[in-house]
Amino acid sequence: MKKLIGDPQNVVRDALIGLEKSADQVRVDHENRVVHRAVPKEQGKVALVSGGGSGHEPLHGGFVGMGMLDAACAGEVFTSPTPDQVEAATTAADRGAGVLHIVKNYTGDVMNFEMAAELAGSVRVESVVTDDDVAVQDSTFTAGRRGVGVTVLLEKIVGAAAEEGHDLDTVAALARRVAAEGRSMGVALTSCTVPAAGKPTFDLPDDEMEVGIGIHGEPGRRRVPVAPASEIAQMLVEPILADLDMTSSPVIVLLNGMGASPLLELHLMYGEVAALLEKAGVTIARRLVGNYITSLDMAGCSLTLLRADDEMIRLWDAPVNTPGLRWGA
Amino acid sequence: MKKLIGDPQNVVRDALIGLEKSADQVRVDHENRVVHRAVPKEQGKVALVSGGGSGHEPLHGGFVGMGMLDAACAGEVFTSPTPDQVEAATTAADRGAGVLHIVKNYTGDVMNFEMAAELAGSVRVESVVTDDDVAVQDSTFTAGRRGVGVTVLLEKIVGAAAEEGHDLDTVAALARRVAAEGRSMGVALTSCTVPAAGKPTFDLPDDEMEVGIGIHGEPGRRRVPVAPASEIAQMLVEPILADLDMTSSPVIVLLNGMGASPLLELHLMYGEVAALLEKAGVTIARRLVGNYITSLDMAGCSLTLLRADDEMIRLWDAPVNTPGLRWGA
Repeated sequence: MKKLIGDPQNVVRDALIGLEKSADQVRVDHENRVVHRAVPKEQGKVALVSGGGSGHEPLHGGFVGMGMLDAACAGEVFTSPTPDQVEAATTAADRGAGVLHIVKNYTGDVMNFEMAAELAGSVRVESVVTDDDVAVQDSTFTAGRRGVGVTVLLEKIVGAAAEEGHDLDTVAALARRVAAEGRSMGVALTSCTVPAAGKPTFDLPDDEMEVGIGIHGEPGRRRVPVAPASEIAQMLVEPILADLDMTSSPVIVLLNGMGASPLLELHLMYGEVAALLEKAGVTIARRLVGNYITSLDMAGCSLTLLRADDEMIRLWDAPVNTPGLRWGA
Repeated sequence: MKKLIGDPQNVVRDALIGLEKSADQVRVDHENRVVHRAVPKEQGKVALVSGGGSGHEPLHGGFVGMGMLDAACAGEVFTSPTPDQVEAATTAADRGAGVLHIVKNYTGDVMNFEMAAELAGSVRVESVVTDDDVAVQDSTFTAGRRGVGVTVLLEKIVGAAAEEGHDLDTVAALARRVAAEGRSMGVALTSCTVPAAGKPTFDLPDDEMEVGIGIHGEPGRRRVPVAPASEIAQMLVEPILADLDMTSSPVIVLLNGMGASPLLELHLMYGEVAALLEKAGVTIARRLVGNYITSLDMAGCSLTLLRADDEMIRLWDAPVNTPGLRWGA
């Protein structure tokens, strides 16, 4: 295993130390492994709290800051944060206007965020669960579809709405609307290696790729021979368009790297994807290309399309200032 | 070779198509493979033109836009752009106030930018050459030190100065000052694979890393067994501090990923580097952690330290809006 790490058991702790030192926007509660805003919001703002297993950086701790999250819980690598962590984040983030939990649809995450909401009894909590991955219906860690790339878009859009001062019901309703409008599909060229395991999560022959990969290396739909980018783009675009009509409103496109694929390749893939979408009559309103929801050192990419109405696009364009996503501020 | 690409011979062309589609800030002259600003500056602004071999994205095309470059030439992968390309970029970018060429110190780049300056006879051109890599004195493609990470910091700082309307002599003098104040050192955990070659540029055993690696996979100082992040941090920090006293003024730190190392590891490495710098009495004024000058699919990282005076820090903080670096706009 070749990684820029120390003791494999302490990777999450050590990375949070580095994140805090590297970013003005956040401070870290190291005991609870919660990333908070460096400058907390005043009373009265709905707080957004997310989190999940580590290994998907910049998700979620890298999206804490003005215009996105108020706090994020970092679980061990590919492991749900505990209810205690989520409760600590929820209680600390509440500014009297309630807290929205943003949860990716994995059984452990859903359960632990629910328990945390009960533990934080005096705080009003609403939840939104993302389940945008069209690859498989159930999966290793999931009942129903897995939550992946739409989580990034949701945290940005809903974060901007919370910043504007809307109440918890309004913010939660928007979050559910965004979650319903997004679909994703991913492909892996290589496996990934969990530091504490020390060996690749799955075996993938040198001439094959996994179509429909999960962000923890969960199996997808099928293995196929390594294909040119134009064919990979088809394998991502077609299942999404088959699942949801994306021509009825403009879309926000996220072409996301899995962690080990360089930007040269992500640019190239975006070009192939955009050409297919144009041919299919999909109108691209906004786009984001880079590493936003990763899977450790996996090579590959995922595509997320979100049907976005005018309000969502306006909120997408609003200023954001986090370690992982920043513009207009 | 597993990559998100089509025909390996057309990787640069295809990636430029994707870059242009993915980024509002730029448009691409595909014939000359020059990335221009989508909204050119008005007459009277000094233009910044850079470029080099592809495979280092977001450098350089990803740094075209308000506050950084006016144009960037994309050579083939790890191959200097031709004099004709650079001339086309220079002539198109000139707004009557002259052009600053920002050139990394590789023999082909230096020669071709010089020839381009002669070809663009009617345009006044000044040049700055970056040579910040302390690893080796001469190298496969280099007489003298190699130009690496400081190029990113220079393009940001000098780009902001050009935006303020200073004349060519002032902008060029600042650029040379920045180039003189920066030092870098890199490490590779894996080799990289040039698409047209189809196999790794060099062999690196599973239990070794290359200390002092070049961004094209050129040999560094030595091979050593894979080490913990804290020891890797020492291997990066110590040679830089031995080369230039970094305690005499605050520094801007770039902890840069080589392309295939995930952000989790880069955060962790930054924590180790920052701890060493604090111990050595170095004051960190600003920091940037992520993939900014990459080496295709190489795993590893590099460290750049830049002694920054108040003016450089003010210019660093100024708004920038490029595909690869953006804040305040």
